[in-house]
Amino acid sequence: MYYLGIDVGGMSIKGALVDKEGVIHYRANIKTEVEKTSEEILQDIKDLCLSLVSEGGIKINALRGIGIGIPGSIDAEEGVIVYSNNINFENVKIVEYLKKTFDCPIKIGNDANVAALGEMKYGSGKGSKNLILVTLGTGVGTGIIVESKILLGKYGAGGEGGHMTLVYNGLPCTCGKKGCWERYASATALIRITEEYSNKYPDSEVAKIIKKEGKISGKTAFIAARNGDKTGAKIVSKYVKYVAEGLISLVNIFRPDCILIGGGVSNEGSYLMKKIERRVSRYSYGGSRNYKVPVKKAELQNDAGILGAAALCIDN
Amino acid sequence: MYYLGIDVGGMSIKGALVDKEGVIHYRANIKTEVEKTSEEILQDIKDLCLSLVSEGGIKINALRGIGIGIPGSIDAEEGVIVYSNNINFENVKIVEYLKKTFDCPIKIGNDANVAALGEMKYGSGKGSKNLILVTLGTGVGTGIIVESKILLGKYGAGGEGGHMTLVYNGLPCTCGKKGCWERYASATALIRITEEYSNKYPDSEVAKIIKKEGKISGKTAFIAARNGDKTGAKIVSKYVKYVAEGLISLVNIFRPDCILIGGGVSNEGSYLMKKIERRVSRYSYGGSRNYKVPVKKAELQNDAGILGAAALCIDN
Repeated sequence: MYYLGIDVGGMSIKGALVDKEGVIHYRANIKTEVEKTSEEILQDIKDLCLSLVSEGGIKINALRGIGIGIPGSIDAEEGVIVYSNNINFENVKIVEYLKKTFDCPIKIGNDANVAALGEMKYGSGKGSKNLILVTLGTGVGTGIIVESKILLGKYGAGGEGGHMTLVYNGLPCTCGKKGCWERYASATALIRITEEYSNKYPDSEVAKIIKKEGKISGKTAFIAARNGDKTGAKIVSKYVKYVAEGLISLVNIFRPDCILIGGGVSNEGSYLMKKIERRVSRYSYGGSRNYKVPVKKAELQNDAGILGAAALCIDN
Repeated sequence: MYYLGIDVGGMSIKGALVDKEGVIHYRANIKTEVEKTSEEILQDIKDLCLSLVSEGGIKINALRGIGIGIPGSIDAEEGVIVYSNNINFENVKIVEYLKKTFDCPIKIGNDANVAALGEMKYGSGKGSKNLILVTLGTGVGTGIIVESKILLGKYGAGGEGGHMTLVYNGLPCTCGKKGCWERYASATALIRITEEYSNKYPDSEVAKIIKKEGKISGKTAFIAARNGDKTGAKIVSKYVKYVAEGLISLVNIFRPDCILIGGGVSNEGSYLMKKIERRVSRYSYGGSRNYKVPVKKAELQNDAGILGAAALCIDN
């Protein structure tokens, strides 16, 4: 029994042929041509599915399901992409379209949610029934699993933890509100903080690295901090506080089995995870009296999307 | 078929004999004698249950369940009160104790969660599967229902939405963290804001009411605002922003069917609800493109606890 997992992103559409145990048997990617119409992109997705089956060497009737993760507002029940801000998708009936070609269950979900499902079934969240996957990237994405199920909210519009208010009347966010968590805890925010500090402390190692490399990245402050630079350490500490503060809010609400951190910043590994975990444990409600929530790196990373998408169709 | 609903509070323990449709057939309250040991309080609860059965005029074998709502950390699965800060309860096996006397299902839950269940089954939340009950009182309590079930979190320690961070590095909270929502949106906070403004504007109607009555309450600013006082209106507006801001975070995460507001402040009725609803609708993620979450007064108020407690045992 095989399943297809499709992960639609702004840059590429990744696909994989997966078995029940989450083992990838064949994979293929195509470029997301965002200038195309929604009909053309749907056709690209269909062609990718067909090629995964044929190139993967299975018969089409061995296919037990197709799961698709898509960025934006997804009505999973109706099988409709309500809105996706990076791709030309508005009220697109993707499930109905694919049903014309494929005679198997087809399910869709928001990409951040689907990745959380992937981590729960096959990644760092294995064995957990309640978990939160936080992806620190351009923004802050959250995928929340409650009792083994994705937290969807009405019309699948929930799960936007990155847009909790962290700083009342703080920095304006693209969502129209001020002070959203993602304005402080995203990789974008880390780069902004790094820039501020490097301007303020031009003799610091952070400033020197930036000058030498000609650019700032989410890694700059961490490299400096690991080398013993005080400014680098200050930036990391400030950033950790922002990340942890939002996680504390989520822990107080959900008290999950574990928190998983994904996105480029999570490559800082246990150096970062331990700092976050200590702060979350200290300041979450009930302090040491309550269950200490482990903070772990999301291990599937780029494969979380395709595996989670496939998992939408796998019952086990 | 009858059920007992027991609502344990810091001041009184309320009890009711309830049928499957949530109709209260008999009720009785006793004082919570907080100076007593946990064994003595357990005995008071047992005696209250027995008297509800006998005075309610039913046979004990017509009793199909006893549900109990208790403030604090509750391990519903094990039937244990882990910790309750107002009453001498620490690791109290209340279910095991009552099982010696009553041969029927006995279930316990945190009081705020149980009240949310009551509102969902018999109050303003009827027909909703996903709702959030926010009680604006001394603190801010949240009871969250996801897919018709109370959101518990590991060992029942979740659901503490009042301790989300709203103001990063803000006012210190009793929980040990800074800037918790409840420091800005509770009735206590409203009184504090009213006091600040009345000191700043001694000629305002707000200041006059306080002088005349010799005290400040959660109603003061609303009375003045309804009478056209600018200072009163400013206080209400500031308070509404704080209440709404935390609700927006919760809406972005959960996108519930509705939000219910309980506690003394909710008696300001639709005057308050409409102001909150407008702000939540405007600033929650996706703005007008998303489902607009209605904000309603929790109608059961003091009965939400006993009805929700009974509902822990009622399957329908």
